[in-house]
Order: sequence, then C-alpha cells, then structure tokens
Amino acid sequence: MSAEYLHPLDPATADEIGRATDMIKKLFSPVELHFKAAGLDEPPKKELVRYLDAEHKGLPLPLLPRCIFAIWYIKRTPRLFEAVVDVTNGKIVQHQELPRDFHGPVDRTELSEAANVVMAHPDVDKEFARLGLDKSQIVLDPWDYGVDGTDTQARMTQVFLYKKNPKNNDVDSSHYSFPLDFMVTVDLCAMEVRKIIRLPLGSDESVTQGNVGQPDSDPAEPEYDHRLQKNPPRTTMKPYNVIQPEGASFTIKGHLIVWEKWRFRVGFNWREGITIHDVHFMDRSAFYRLSLSEMFVPYGDPRSPIYRKGAFDLGNVGAGVTANNLQLGCDCLGVIKYVDGCVVAADGSPAPRPNAICIHEVDQGIQWKHTNHRTGKAVVVRKRQLVIQQIITVANYEYIFAWIFDQNGEISFETRATGILSTQPIDKESKVPWGTRVADGVMAPYHQHLFNVRIDPAIDGHQNSFVYSDSVQMPWDEKLNPLGTGYISKETTVNRAGTVEDSLADGRVFKIVNPNVENRVSMTPTGYKLVPIRSQMLLAQPGSWHWRRSEFCESPLWVTKYKDRQLFPAGDYTNQSIGGQGIKTWVKDRDYVVNDDIVIWHTFGFTHNPRVEDFPVMPAEIAAFHLKPYNFCEYNPTNDVPPSNQEFNKSTSYEDANKASCCTTKGRL
Amino acid sequence: MSAEYLHPLDPATADEIGRATDMIKKLFSPVELHFKAAGLDEPPKKELVRYLDAEHKGLPLPLLPRCIFAIWYIKRTPRLFEAVVDVTNGKIVQHQELPRDFHGPVDRTELSEAANVVMAHPDVDKEFARLGLDKSQIVLDPWDYGVDGTDTQARMTQVFLYKKNPKNNDVDSSHYSFPLDFMVTVDLCAMEVRKIIRLPLGSDESVTQGNVGQPDSDPAEPEYDHRLQKNPPRTTMKPYNVIQPEGASFTIKGHLIVWEKWRFRVGFNWREGITIHDVHFMDRSAFYRLSLSEMFVPYGDPRSPIYRKGAFDLGNVGAGVTANNLQLGCDCLGVIKYVDGCVVAADGSPAPRPNAICIHEVDQGIQWKHTNHRTGKAVVVRKRQLVIQQIITVANYEYIFAWIFDQNGEISFETRATGILSTQPIDKESKVPWGTRVADGVMAPYHQHLFNVRIDPAIDGHQNSFVYSDSVQMPWDEKLNPLGTGYISKETTVNRAGTVEDSLADGRVFKIVNPNVENRVSMTPTGYKLVPIRSQMLLAQPGSWHWRRSEFCESPLWVTKYKDRQLFPAGDYTNQSIGGQGIKTWVKDRDYVVNDDIVIWHTFGFTHNPRVEDFPVMPAEIAAFHLKPYNFCEYNPTNDVPPSNQEFNKSTSYEDANKASCCTTKGRL
Repeated sequence: MSAEYLHPLDPATADEIGRATDMIKKLFSPVELHFKAAGLDEPPKKELVRYLDAEHKGLPLPLLPRCIFAIWYIKRTPRLFEAVVDVTNGKIVQHQELPRDFHGPVDRTELSEAANVVMAHPDVDKEFARLGLDKSQIVLDPWDYGVDGTDTQARMTQVFLYKKNPKNNDVDSSHYSFPLDFMVTVDLCAMEVRKIIRLPLGSDESVTQGNVGQPDSDPAEPEYDHRLQKNPPRTTMKPYNVIQPEGASFTIKGHLIVWEKWRFRVGFNWREGITIHDVHFMDRSAFYRLSLSEMFVPYGDPRSPIYRKGAFDLGNVGAGVTANNLQLGCDCLGVIKYVDGCVVAADGSPAPRPNAICIHEVDQGIQWKHTNHRTGKAVVVRKRQLVIQQIITVANYEYIFAWIFDQNGEISFETRATGILSTQPIDKESKVPWGTRVADGVMAPYHQHLFNVRIDPAIDGHQNSFVYSDSVQMPWDEKLNPLGTGYISKETTVNRAGTVEDSLADGRVFKIVNPNVENRVSMTPTGYKLVPIRSQMLLAQPGSWHWRRSEFCESPLWVTKYKDRQLFPAGDYTNQSIGGQGIKTWVKDRDYVVNDDIVIWHTFGFTHNPRVEDFPVMPAEIAAFHLKPYNFCEYNPTNDVPPSNQEFNKSTSYEDANKASCCTTKGRL
Repeated sequence: MSAEYLHPLDPATADEIGRATDMIKKLFSPVELHFKAAGLDEPPKKELVRYLDAEHKGLPLPLLPRCIFAIWYIKRTPRLFEAVVDVTNGKIVQHQELPRDFHGPVDRTELSEAANVVMAHPDVDKEFARLGLDKSQIVLDPWDYGVDGTDTQARMTQVFLYKKNPKNNDVDSSHYSFPLDFMVTVDLCAMEVRKIIRLPLGSDESVTQGNVGQPDSDPAEPEYDHRLQKNPPRTTMKPYNVIQPEGASFTIKGHLIVWEKWRFRVGFNWREGITIHDVHFMDRSAFYRLSLSEMFVPYGDPRSPIYRKGAFDLGNVGAGVTANNLQLGCDCLGVIKYVDGCVVAADGSPAPRPNAICIHEVDQGIQWKHTNHRTGKAVVVRKRQLVIQQIITVANYEYIFAWIFDQNGEISFETRATGILSTQPIDKESKVPWGTRVADGVMAPYHQHLFNVRIDPAIDGHQNSFVYSDSVQMPWDEKLNPLGTGYISKETTVNRAGTVEDSLADGRVFKIVNPNVENRVSMTPTGYKLVPIRSQMLLAQPGSWHWRRSEFCESPLWVTKYKDRQLFPAGDYTNQSIGGQGIKTWVKDRDYVVNDDIVIWHTFGFTHNPRVEDFPVMPAEIAAFHLKPYNFCEYNPTNDVPPSNQEFNKSTSYEDANKASCCTTKGRL
C-alpha cells in the first residue's frame, strides 16, 4: 500500500520503515549502522487536529506527509543518532547525534551477542567448572543494566545465569527455578565481559563463598510448561465457548474502529505498543490520544549487584518490540480481529509483529437492572465491552495491557502482570526482609511495577481543565444541617502544571471538564472522571538513581500543558538514563493549565512482594483505572441497549445441561 | 424432605418455616401475629465445628437439631418478639419480647397498607387537587424511616410520592422521573397518616410555596423500560452466546458445591441473602463463614425531611426478602444452576424465593502466560471463575452481589449498585451542593453506599491472627543500602479487638495468618491476604443519628474475637435504631485476638454523587474486594490448569466470522 492511502495515524508500515532506514543507511554509507527503533512520527498536534476536523466534517483533507522516527548507533560505538524521515517526500527532515549520556534501547540482537560473549569467556568457564555444570545446561538472561553512578557513558548489559531443570534439561525448562550464584556484566560497545560478580546468598550483603550457589533442590513444581510438569493437567474443567453467530458488533476499516456509540483509531509503535486516537463517543470528541507512556520496575533488594535492577520496559525495550504474536483460541475467546504491527531489526530491515493487537468483545455481566416491585416487571441489560489488547514479554515477565471500551461511555485501562519472577539463589536456611523464598534455594526479590498512562483529553474540544471534587461534611448548623447528616461536594480547579494530590479520606474525584460547554441537564460543565488505581508510589530513596530516573513515579497524578514530543515522562532515552529529562522538567515552569490544551498523567502500580503462589509462573495481578463520562451525556447512554433475554443469549439450565452431557456421554459409549 | 436429611447449614425450608410459625402462633393464640422474619438459626460454632470435623473425616455425625429464628409483632402493636424454634424436636427453645426502642424490619404487606392509608386520606387528596392530579396517576414509594431523635418508639414509615409519566400513564412508567413536592409519614401501629410534609424545592432549606412542585418537563428520556422509551433499542449489538457443550465444571449436591480445587456450602437467609460456609481450597480449611453483614445508605441532603433518609438494606429489609427471581438467559450466560430460598410472609406462611441465587462459571481472560523468547514457545492458561450471585431490589435501587471463586485460590466479593436513583423535585433554575440535577426539575441527592462484609476465617484451622505488612524504605546505609534502592516489609500483628487503620502510602497489605502452621517453602505462616476496596468512610457528623446507628461505617477494618450471634455490626435491629448495639460495643473490651478464633469485618462503599448518566437507570457501579492465598500453597495452584488452545476454546477470526455471517445473511435473503 503506498503512503498516499494511509491515514496520518496509521502505524508505520514495513515499506515505510524500510524506506526510512534505507535513506539513513545511504546517508552514513559505508559506515555500518545498528538500528534500535523505528516507527511512525505522528504529525504535530496543530496539523493533525486540522486534518481530523476536516475528516469529521467530510471536508477536503490537508496533505500531511508520513514520517518515520528512527534511532540507531554507529555499530559497536557509543555514537547514538535519531532522525525524522519524511517517507512521503523521500527526505530526512532532521537528524542529530545525541549526547554521550544517552543510550538507545536494548535489542535482542545485541543481547544475544552479549550472551555469546559470556558463554565464550574462559573465566565464566571456570565458574561453570566450580559448579560442576556443562555449558549445555546453562541459560542466560541478559537484562537492561540500570545505573549505579559509575561509568554512565559505557553501554552495558548485565547477564543473569541459570541452569535448565536437571531433571529434563529441556530447552523450555523454567530455568528461573534454578538460579546460579554469579552474574556477568558486558560492555556492549567493546562487546567484552567486564565483570563476573558473585551473588549474595545469605540474609545480608555479604557474599557466601560456600558451595550453595546451585540449588540442588527438588521444588514442588519447578515447571510452568505442562509438557514438563510432574503431573498431567487437571481434567475437571469443561469447555467454555463464546459463540457469536452473527459475527462481531464492531467494524474496522484500516485502523478506524466503530463499535456501538464509539469511534476511534488504534495505533501501534515500537515503544508504546497500542495507542488510541481521536476517540469519539456519541459523535462527540472525548479524547485526543491515550497510551501507556512508561513503566518502571525497581527492585528492593539493596545488595550489589541487584541494586541496579530497575527496568523501564517501554523506553528500554518497547511494548511494540516485545509484542506477542497472539494466537486464535489461546489469548481471547469469541470473534477476534488481529492487527499486525511492524518494528525494525538491527540491520534496518522491517521486523513485522504479526497479530500484535487483538480486538474482541466480551460480556461483563449486568450493565443495569431494575425490577418494579409493584408489577414484578424486571428489565435487565447486559454489559458488552470492546477490548483492544496486547501482551508483551520482557525477558521473564509478561504484561497484558487492554484498553476496554464500554457501552456506557467508560474507557478502562487494564493491566495484568504475569509471567515469571526474576529470581536469585538463596542459602538453605536464610530468609531476607526484601524477598520471598518461592522455592527451595530460590528467592524472588520484592519489586514495584509502576506504570504511567498519558491521557490527552479532548472533552468536547481541546480546551479542557482538570478539577477535583471532594465530598466534605457540612458543619453542624441548626438551620442548614440540623441533624448533622449533610455533605456537599467541593470543587478545586488545578491552575498550574504539576502534581495533583490524592485524598481518599475526602473521597476525591478527579475530573477532566470542558468549562466552555455546559450540560443542559446538570447545568455543570461536561466532563469525564478519572477513577485512579490508588497505589503506593516509588519506594526508593529520594536522590537515589531509581528515583532520579523515574520522575513520574513520585505522584499518582500530573497535569501538563500540551507540548508536541512530550510523550515519555521518564524521558525519551531511559536506558541507563541518569534522570533530568522527564516530566519534572516539563512542569518546572508551572504553566497555567486552566481551559487549555492539557495532558493528564496517571501513575499507578503494584508493590509486588512475591507470594509462593506466584511461582513458577504468576497468576495475573490485575488492576484497572477508568475514565467515565461525568455529566457528559444527557442521560444514561446504555438506556437503549436491548433487554437481555433468553432468545438472544441462549443460556442453559444446569439440569438441562446435565441431561444433555449425560446423553452425549452415552452416545459416545 | 424431612429435617433429618438436611445439613445443619442448609437454609430453612418452607416446611420448617411453616412449622416454626405454627408453633409460635399456637403459643399466642388467639392473639393475631404479624411475622417479620424467619430463617435458619445456625448451630453454635462449637457444635457446628464438631459436626464439620466429623463430616470431613467421614466419622459418624453428631445430631444437631434444626432451628428456626423468627421475629414477629403482635399485630398492630409495638410489641416485638423473637424466638428460636427447634423444628427437629418440635419445641420453642427460647423466646423473648424486645425493648420498645427495637423495631422489626419493614415488610411489603405493612408498607402496602401504609400506602393505602395515604391514598385514602382527605388531606392527601387536597394535595393532589392542588397539583391537578388524579389518583390513578400517583405512585407511592414507602421507605424505611430513619431516625431524627423524636418519637423513637413509634413505628413509622415515610412515603415519597411520584406520578406516572404523563405521556403514557403506564404501570411500569419510571415515576422517579416525576417526583411530587410533598411526602407523608405514617404511624404503622395506628396505621394512620401522621404528617404531610412539603419538600424543599430551591437551593436551601426553605420550602417554596410556588407551583413548581410538579415537574412538567419532558426529560430527554424518562423511561428505562424499552417498551416505554421514545426510541426503539439499538440494533447494533450482535448476539454473544456462552456455550458449555459438556455442561458446567461444578457439581452441587444439596447445598455443597465442588468446583476445581474448591469445596464449600452455600446458605441463604432472609437477612444476609447468600452465606458461604466451610470453605476449603485444595482440601485445606480457608474460611468458616463469609457473608455480607450489613449495608447503610445515608443521604447527604441536610434538609427536612430528607435528613432522615438512611437505609440499612439488610437489617431493615433483608437481602433474602428482596431477592430477585433470576431468569434463565437474562441475568447470566452459560450453564446456570438456580437455588431457591424461602422467607416468611406476614401471616407466618412460608414465602418462597425461587431462583434467589444463581451459580455459573465465567471466563475472565488470561490467568497466566509466559513466552520463552529463546524458543518462541508460549504457554497460556485462561482464568475460570465460579460466580455465586444474587440480585436484590430495595424499592428504587438494585444491588448485585457475587461471591466469585477463582481457580487460583482467590475469593472476591463483587458489588454492583444499579437500579434507579431516589429523586426529589427541584426548581427550574436551582442547583444544590448536595445533589445533582439528573433531569429537568429532578434532583438526585448525594448519598453513600457503605457495605460491610463479615469474614470468619479458618486458615488451616480456627486459631488465626490478623497482621498487616507495610513496604517501607530502608534508610541510606553505605553497607546495607548503598544505592538507596532497598525496601523491606514490616509486619504488625493486631493484638486487640478494634479498628485497624489503612495506609496506602505504606502499601499496607492485610493478612489473615495461622501462626501455628508454617509454609515450608516461604518459611512463613500460611495465610490469606485481604485486598480491601479503599473507600471514603461515613460523612455524617460524629454524634449524628446516621453516625450513631451505623457503627461499622467509621473504619474500613475491624477485628473481633469470635462470639456466637455477633453477625450484624450495626446491631440485630437496625430499623429506626438509635445505635449502641453494634460492633463498637463488641470491641469495647479490647479482647486479645492473637492466635485465636477471630472475625474480620471489612467496610467499603461508594460515595455516590450522581451523574446525569446514572439516570433514568444507573449503569452498575462496580467494586470488588479480594481474599488471596498468601503463602498458603506451595506453588501456583493454577499451574495444572490445561493450556488454552483453539481445540478447546473454538474461537473465530473476524475475517471468517464476516464470511460466515455474510453467507448467513445471503441464505436468509
């Protein structure tokens, strides 16, 4: 498909990525490059708004060139570059070399090379010999490096080592059940081993020099892969099929999705994965852009070398880069639309991410019900939702991210943290206050998962305000509050860019409103409320590297005045970052944010002190925050959802099902 | 079925209720009685534990008599009685008359009589005449009364008045869209009108004497019943069928449910509705009894007579009494088992509540996933849950309560608040700070829904402790925390009965543990964590009647030492209660609660300041709290759930579905 037929918000195509990297390669030829990232460079908001307005009104569309943003190194050097390439007009719009303290994201190619270097090193061989291990038993887990204040300009990786399950020595064995007692750091420019570091095994920071570094335990069940488990899977669970005999209720045309009273575009890029654009509900503008903007996973084990573990999974790796290839009948039920994505390979060639996004409907129980007790007439309506989902694998962990649209005008962002805990070895008898023994000889350190979602609202237009409303007691008053039962809501508008405090005790409700548009029924501004995931913020000490680098993790809510290219609240380059490039800088000027083009940033997460139940694979830890219409509509937008009835739903009574399955069984015999 | 064949925890049967009330009637004959409530009187814990232990071990079962607890008035008097009747041995074990400040729950019979009295009153006629209304247009909404400190011994009801939609004058018209400007109080003993009270219509406490008391507005859509709506329902939503071709995965035998690794009993009574008993996970004891114990709905409009609105929907009415008759294909999807209940009618006859509880499975997305990026091998397991659900209608409101059991050992309690807002009239131009204009001339006052769930744990036995664990920063330390990244968990055991503070900033995790049983993997006590719904507590002023009566609403968490008959934390008799009978009394002695038989009480809820979107019927406001195994198991209990695959799930690609439905459509033409 040629560029002319693409919408300005369609993700970068393989062709576009290839053409952009070709132009860059040509510019540097014959110097060899190592590409780190490439994806759509979205048009500046001013231009895009003009385009979208024309599109909504059916007017002639302005011409917007398709641009690709790319990041690369001169191969095996610390020289990092970024560029915007106009692939419509075939020109490099801008490119620049970045300061030496900036590091590009990691990539599989480079980390594999690092793993090979580790495996080939004679000193590492000695460690294997010490542990009586053959190389065929070893599995390496290269991690993004983090920062300890030394050598911030060196491009590094840290490689954790494990062995396969000695019982099966299988390629898909869960090596996280068998951590070794040392790790290796590698310089990625020199592509050389830097240090071999023995891990602490006891209850303090000291390194035990004993022979406990190789848990020879036989954990209750070290494997998550059923093929390798001690016992066969349970047989108690009967099939549960979602059948949509008339197909899905949504349509997708290009990347434009229309479902029930919703209309929006789905985007995709190497860093954020799914992006959501130009969201309209009931033909009214609600949000300009929604995305997971960053996440940080700092570890709580204070000891060397674990204290460096703190991963920005989006900025350091990319939610698009790590997108799973979703499979029909595995990751969702019902009628499923898959959307492909494309990122870039190290050599600049396009790297497709097939089935990176799945789109499907779910039934979420009852939307509303009322029974008139006078007549016995019950009216019940079910709750249908549309799920835009992706799953990413970042080394040991998985994250399932879903944007969920509800018929009632609500948008939820749901996070499921699953996958496998990053583990360390531990002495037979030791316990530590910063980690949990999850198997014999295996310790999973405490850590936090702190996410930030960027919400660029457009409630009935782009001039919005952020307000919070507290529910507060009225004082006792003989006339105005004679029984002491009264309470009122008290609204505060956030005037200046910065953080916004939460207050559970005040029942604080956060709202994005359009002060220029009044709801004629409530006689108040139209708006959406943000129902946050109330979470513990960053635990690392102020001034620590974790703290300096993860600027967004200090507060659950931030407001900024919109500015192009302010998308990533821990900075554009998070890998080995030293801080000072994120949202704290943006709010320093305390911009006036009333009735203006504003952006809301919500930080939330899990303090994950592992349970034994989280091992060898972790049942998803689930949390969702919500954007709900708040005096946006003139009445319940699901009022016209048809009543739920048996003709439509075709349920079965337990007794009938038992009869039927009993007959089926007989028929089989 | 005769009593001998019933389990001690099976709900009261119609036969048992009839026999119990017959005995009571005989005792009082010929004095006429008005029954208020009747249901199972569960055996004292000591005896029941002995029975259950024998049952689990397959030993001979002790004989426990079946007992019925009943509440009644001597008809048309304030004389209130309660009794325990042993229906196995045909004797009244105990009965007593209650103090005059105690009031029995409301019932439909009495409230209908009150409504008739209002409609027959000549002064009410005059009000109708003032408003130009014919009696056929009127709908009455009798409410439980609340307390204002006067006349606490009189048995009262307050009747709110509405008219039908003038456009249709239909019996199922949503009269809440058309509130009248006066209400009437009725003495239920004398069964006489006491007062006719004009409602305030403006923005303060004054009563406007104008002619605005009858909103002649034409709201955007006043009706929730599709039959009466201005426009036909949407046609965009395609069917979504849950098919379980081999039937359900659970079995139910009497009231014993076995599903996946769970085994528990479901109970039912007039007051709590669903109760859950003797919960075992993986053949280990987890909980002795779980139930919604009470809920309070105080209103925030400080003006007379609204300031009396504060309903205890369980104690005043009963979640069993108001249980909806659930219908196949309406309230749930898939294979559904319905369980009947029985309460008592005013005349003492059994009042069946058919289909009061529904039991069904749901698929809740992904339970866990991991992709080995080295081999590309993905293993994904779906999340199946078992839902034990009921729906209650309390006048205008509906609540959907569900106990949800997950394969992963988690129990969730989910509340959905739906139904219709209780409304008042308001002047054309007025706004009030304690309510929202939800339609022209219609104001919905702010209110809170505060629920309390009683958790009687039995983690590996009945000797448990309640502890909380905070995640706290380690201080900077050159040796122990050199990079300032360390954090640890700090555990505190609750020593004494009373309230327990929450602390979001500390990432506080609440755990019920058995200090006598150690998890051999984590080397810590086995336990379950309680993930609360973090909510604003009661807003009414300390010392107010709302505050005195709703003792549990002061704190999100309470711990008590187990005592028989301490089930209802606002007291046994909440209707028109004046307080002093609930959980605050129970914790006064500050019982020692370490390693003992303890009960945990969790208060949570919604501060519901209505949105226009909540009208004319409210999309469910949803919240759930969770009980999760925490170092209870030795590894992930869903490790053996079979992998999710297309053979089992039978999903359809969007493209194939479109092809198929296109063919279907063609076939139809």
